[in-house]
Amino acid sequence: MTATAGPPVLRHEVDPQVDPRRLTCTFGGAEPVASLLPRSILDTSTLDAFAGRLRTVHDKVSERLDRRYVNPQTGPFYVDGARPGDTLALHFARIEPRESYGVSTTVPLFGSLSATGVTAMLHSPLPEMTWIYAIDRRSRVVHYEANESALRVELPLDPMHGTVGVAPALGEVRSSLVPGDWGGNMDTPEMRSGATCYLGVNVAGALFSFGDGHARQGEGETCGVAVEAAMDTVVVVDLVKEVATPWPRLETDEYWMTAGSARPLEDAFRIAHSQLVHWVVELTGASVMDAYQLVSQTAETPVANVVDPNYTVVAKMAKKYLPGVEAMAGTHQRLRQLGSAYLGLMA
Amino acid sequence: MTATAGPPVLRHEVDPQVDPRRLTCTFGGAEPVASLLPRSILDTSTLDAFAGRLRTVHDKVSERLDRRYVNPQTGPFYVDGARPGDTLALHFARIEPRESYGVSTTVPLFGSLSATGVTAMLHSPLPEMTWIYAIDRRSRVVHYEANESALRVELPLDPMHGTVGVAPALGEVRSSLVPGDWGGNMDTPEMRSGATCYLGVNVAGALFSFGDGHARQGEGETCGVAVEAAMDTVVVVDLVKEVATPWPRLETDEYWMTAGSARPLEDAFRIAHSQLVHWVVELTGASVMDAYQLVSQTAETPVANVVDPNYTVVAKMAKKYLPGVEAMAGTHQRLRQLGSAYLGLMA
Amino acid sequence: MTATAGPPVLRHEVDPQVDPRRLTCTFGGAEPVASLLPRSILDTSTLDAFAGRLRTVHDKVSERLDRRYVNPQTGPFYVDGARPGDTLALHFARIEPRESYGVSTTVPLFGSLSATGVTAMLHSPLPEMTWIYAIDRRSRVVHYEANESALRVELPLDPMHGTVGVAPALGEVRSSLVPGDWGGNMDTPEMRSGATCYLGVNVAGALFSFGDGHARQGEGETCGVAVEAAMDTVVVVDLVKEVATPWPRLETDEYWMTAGSARPLEDAFRIAHSQLVHWVVELTGASVMDAYQLVSQTAETPVANVVDPNYTVVAKMAKKYLPGVEAMAGTHQRLRQLGSAYLGLMA
Amino acid sequence: MTATAGPPVLRHEVDPQVDPRRLTCTFGGAEPVASLLPRSILDTSTLDAFAGRLRTVHDKVSERLDRRYVNPQTGPFYVDGARPGDTLALHFARIEPRESYGVSTTVPLFGSLSATGVTAMLHSPLPEMTWIYAIDRRSRVVHYEANESALRVELPLDPMHGTVGVAPALGEVRSSLVPGDWGGNMDTPEMRSGATCYLGVNVAGALFSFGDGHARQGEGETCGVAVEAAMDTVVVVDLVKEVATPWPRLETDEYWMTAGSARPLEDAFRIAHSQLVHWVVELTGASVMDAYQLVSQTAETPVANVVDPNYTVVAKMAKKYLPGVEAMAGTHQRLRQLGSAYLGLMA
Repeated sequence: MTATAGPPVLRHEVDPQVDPRRLTCTFGGAEPVASLLPRSILDTSTLDAFAGRLRTVHDKVSERLDRRYVNPQTGPFYVDGARPGDTLALHFARIEPRESYGVSTTVPLFGSLSATGVTAMLHSPLPEMTWIYAIDRRSRVVHYEANESALRVELPLDPMHGTVGVAPALGEVRSSLVPGDWGGNMDTPEMRSGATCYLGVNVAGALFSFGDGHARQGEGETCGVAVEAAMDTVVVVDLVKEVATPWPRLETDEYWMTAGSARPLEDAFRIAHSQLVHWVVELTGASVMDAYQLVSQTAETPVANVVDPNYTVVAKMAKKYLPGVEAMAGTHQRLRQLGSAYLGLMA
Repeated sequence: MTATAGPPVLRHEVDPQVDPRRLTCTFGGAEPVASLLPRSILDTSTLDAFAGRLRTVHDKVSERLDRRYVNPQTGPFYVDGARPGDTLALHFARIEPRESYGVSTTVPLFGSLSATGVTAMLHSPLPEMTWIYAIDRRSRVVHYEANESALRVELPLDPMHGTVGVAPALGEVRSSLVPGDWGGNMDTPEMRSGATCYLGVNVAGALFSFGDGHARQGEGETCGVAVEAAMDTVVVVDLVKEVATPWPRLETDEYWMTAGSARPLEDAFRIAHSQLVHWVVELTGASVMDAYQLVSQTAETPVANVVDPNYTVVAKMAKKYLPGVEAMAGTHQRLRQLGSAYLGLMA
Repeated sequence: MTATAGPPVLRHEVDPQVDPRRLTCTFGGAEPVASLLPRSILDTSTLDAFAGRLRTVHDKVSERLDRRYVNPQTGPFYVDGARPGDTLALHFARIEPRESYGVSTTVPLFGSLSATGVTAMLHSPLPEMTWIYAIDRRSRVVHYEANESALRVELPLDPMHGTVGVAPALGEVRSSLVPGDWGGNMDTPEMRSGATCYLGVNVAGALFSFGDGHARQGEGETCGVAVEAAMDTVVVVDLVKEVATPWPRLETDEYWMTAGSARPLEDAFRIAHSQLVHWVVELTGASVMDAYQLVSQTAETPVANVVDPNYTVVAKMAKKYLPGVEAMAGTHQRLRQLGSAYLGLMA
Repeated sequence: MTATAGPPVLRHEVDPQVDPRRLTCTFGGAEPVASLLPRSILDTSTLDAFAGRLRTVHDKVSERLDRRYVNPQTGPFYVDGARPGDTLALHFARIEPRESYGVSTTVPLFGSLSATGVTAMLHSPLPEMTWIYAIDRRSRVVHYEANESALRVELPLDPMHGTVGVAPALGEVRSSLVPGDWGGNMDTPEMRSGATCYLGVNVAGALFSFGDGHARQGEGETCGVAVEAAMDTVVVVDLVKEVATPWPRLETDEYWMTAGSARPLEDAFRIAHSQLVHWVVELTGASVMDAYQLVSQTAETPVANVVDPNYTVVAKMAKKYLPGVEAMAGTHQRLRQLGSAYLGLMA
């Protein structure tokens, strides 16, 4: 690589017509599709969570999908040199819908306002229903259309990835429907372009993958399904060597964020906020009690999902409160520049 | 007061030196301190949650306060004509710190990252510590100072009331430390000036009170104590007759909001979001399933508190998504105008 | 009764035809109906939780009852000399159905396998249905009859009180539907005759009451309603002076038990088991860690209720494991003897 | 083995000195160690949860064990003919300690009365401590000895397996520390000899394994560690073809039982009790509402564990209430006879 050539670039094609049995629907348990050097660009795409099988309001999840092949991920990718105890950094430089539509549904016995397989009740399931959203990339609008009335609502396009993760610890293999300390299906709208996601490495090569693009979603993902959409995505990949990250962290130009995933929801909150306290200790040298106090008066706390096998809460601290403080040795700023340069080159 | 002078105004003085045994520290169970007509202005003040007893970093809650007299409320006020089945509307026109300091603490066996009396564990309590914040009302800044290092942080002044409620149903009397369907200690930063709070009336006269001013707080109120401050507060009071409000709702110029209070935290989420779904049904005529879908893609969901006997989650929908829609027969807009007029008169 | 005949006896009549508005349906907030000396016998009765209003399978809760007058209690009784910091001991010497029937129901949006007002969902409520049980006191059998098939099942009569409590702390008044540290609606089948219930005193006179007789119930009270029955009940009342009891405890000839009430259910578990650990420390002089270990290998942990506003878990330790150890200065044995003597006299 | 000798018998040796990296510490993700025909006897043994590495009170988990190799399982075994949609039946004919000692510990940030990695708090961990129990197989006694005082307690020997499971669905691989719908680390004392465990088959061959023998444990396994002991175990294995079992069930001569594993604990309760309701429907032909009622008055509900990544609750119904009713086509009785015959032959 020459100084003028920029970082290495991996272009990885995803075949929308692939046999579903060949989809990667787990974290862990799959062979890498490619390998990458740290400080590389990955230019790829993702299928939507239904692998493109729902296209009209008449398509039902329960009829069109085998539950083993839901929420396919692009990857896993092997990062050269990644070892347990390191942190993987994934900067999302671009997340853009591939198609001019997105889809949402209700799924029987799934969703925050429904009995489920574990919040087991004796009610009949809620109706299964599908909504199709027109996506207008030029005007950056997503069009909601009610199925049972004339209601139409224009919503801002706000693309993001619901699922980003690495292979879990302890030899576990987890469904891509589950979030946890390996990342996974966190379903937070904070995972939009401009964000850097930090994930602790559990196995050699990290084996990261991502998918579950959403043209937008509400916080909490109330019914369990966002505006699901295939995405074109550019990620800048890096390693922070010998820095452990016990739970996923995010960084943007304006915020440091921690994500906790657990049940009940207060445990997701506890994880996210204790991680934020410990991060403030690292960043400022404050004592734990002083950091606890500062977090108590400054945290912003959007709920990410209350529908997956673990729920996710994000805790955010505005960087403006701690001017001059830099996290992860400036990784976010560096990756953002690499991403911008690449996108500029491609434009 | 003359007909041309605007709405009736009640000025209610609160004596900071009052005998603690005469403080109102419950919702229900107390005689009204005054009565008000609907469409009145209430111009009053509130003590801080410690009744002013903590003033230096050496003052500890466990030494300075009798737990029966914590979180005193201003009120209760009797609203003429309020009957069970009506909704009380309280528009906060002004919430302004009375003093140039605020105070926060940790309290043994209290807070989201601590064992408590009900999340009972065998650990020793975390250290009890007090922080004093200088409040600069002119520059709108609150000054955080670490106790155990040199860290200093400037935070925006953002005054609000942690506790607003009416007398509960079923003849219950609840501590002002508890939130529930009667409102109470919801501890959401959304209860700032400019917000209208709607509460279902359970007893004749509604018997509302409020207090627990915060110069600011993080979402979730992680350690359980915000920047506690005495407040000067102007409220515009009204009734929405024969409209029931099962759980508290808030309205600002930009948002409709619902607040759910329960444990575990997912039940607070479920209450807030099911209430938001039902509110969208009322506002738009959409079906429940279509409203569920719209809420799923639009809700903003800040956690309010994860420390009180019930936890509180707020669900918000931006009004811009439903242009031309008006809630509660325009009560918020009307009260905001009355409040602005009164403040203009006083300026 | 003469001075030589044993303890003072209070016979308290309950009028089944009383105006519902005069029923006591709270803990706290009601004037005492009578006062008692410590070491007294109270010979009284209780209405069933529906105040006798459901008598056939066609009677529905939602049609026949005002929710303000559900679960009426007998009392409150003022115990002379009871002060905050003491423990009230209530030994149930006899609990016997007054009538030859009991009743159970489903209640819309109530029960562990149903959406509720706080586990708020979008499902339609489960069907409301009433079951009438014949109670055969001679053969000690309760007769279950299915409503929708020919299934008939004979179950053992096992009478108990679902609700036993004192006035709460902090001036609170709580619905008799709620359990907490004051006792209340714990709904544990362990509250049968032969058991002594210990409750911490919060207000002068303790102001105890009880009710909610069940001819039997399953652990957890799955649908939320047991075989509800009016009871004739004999209680021996005593005080353990200057012994605080933070959460309810029970004692029988064979077990020491602690009851925790909270949400989520694991917090009820944590309360009950941490209380049992601390009780073992008091009884044996063991360290907290050694007691934790002993409880871990010996506790029996029946769920009491998963339906009320707080859930209740009971932790039990068999007395046989700690031979020669006596709790509460032998109160249980003493009250059991007083109760037996009284019942012998009455026979 | 001869044709007249009864069912096929597999004797499977477990090497206590095996390299830890060769231990099976997951459900799923491991190659079968042997295959079995339905209606076979498996005569084998299990290592204790610490693979024998803790032998004195000075041995600490954090010093002696690699967390990847905790809770090793014997297996997995491939059952010929087992297909997804079938039910595997495992009858425990004999569970007997191999050694004359058992071991328990506290583990930092683990246990129901401790902050943990997910119930994340700011407390220091509780002390790490180890207890050694002498096991007297002849007198059937387990000897508790306090570490910090002279307290000694004799407890009944009551051997059981904490962990029994099959390979999970969706290609997942789960740590043997986790319980779920595949069984796993349910930690219920009901899994003693005499019990038949029914598990739904998710993959060809079922791939069952078991381990985590306990010389005894309290319900809830409060500190997270029972009296851990290596076991000699005889299991009778069978298939119930084309009967799906969504969550683990158990059967003894006296009880039908269902086990639910989830967080929060009320969801484990909901799973277990809804499964019991549906089982009563299958067994009696009653309607769901009538079965719900019967379960409400008869269920016994011991908590199994409140310490693992999912908590487990067991719901039990006494068979005596439904005389003449047979579950799973009499599998339990049949396997019990096969087991007794084999043990008789071996005696």
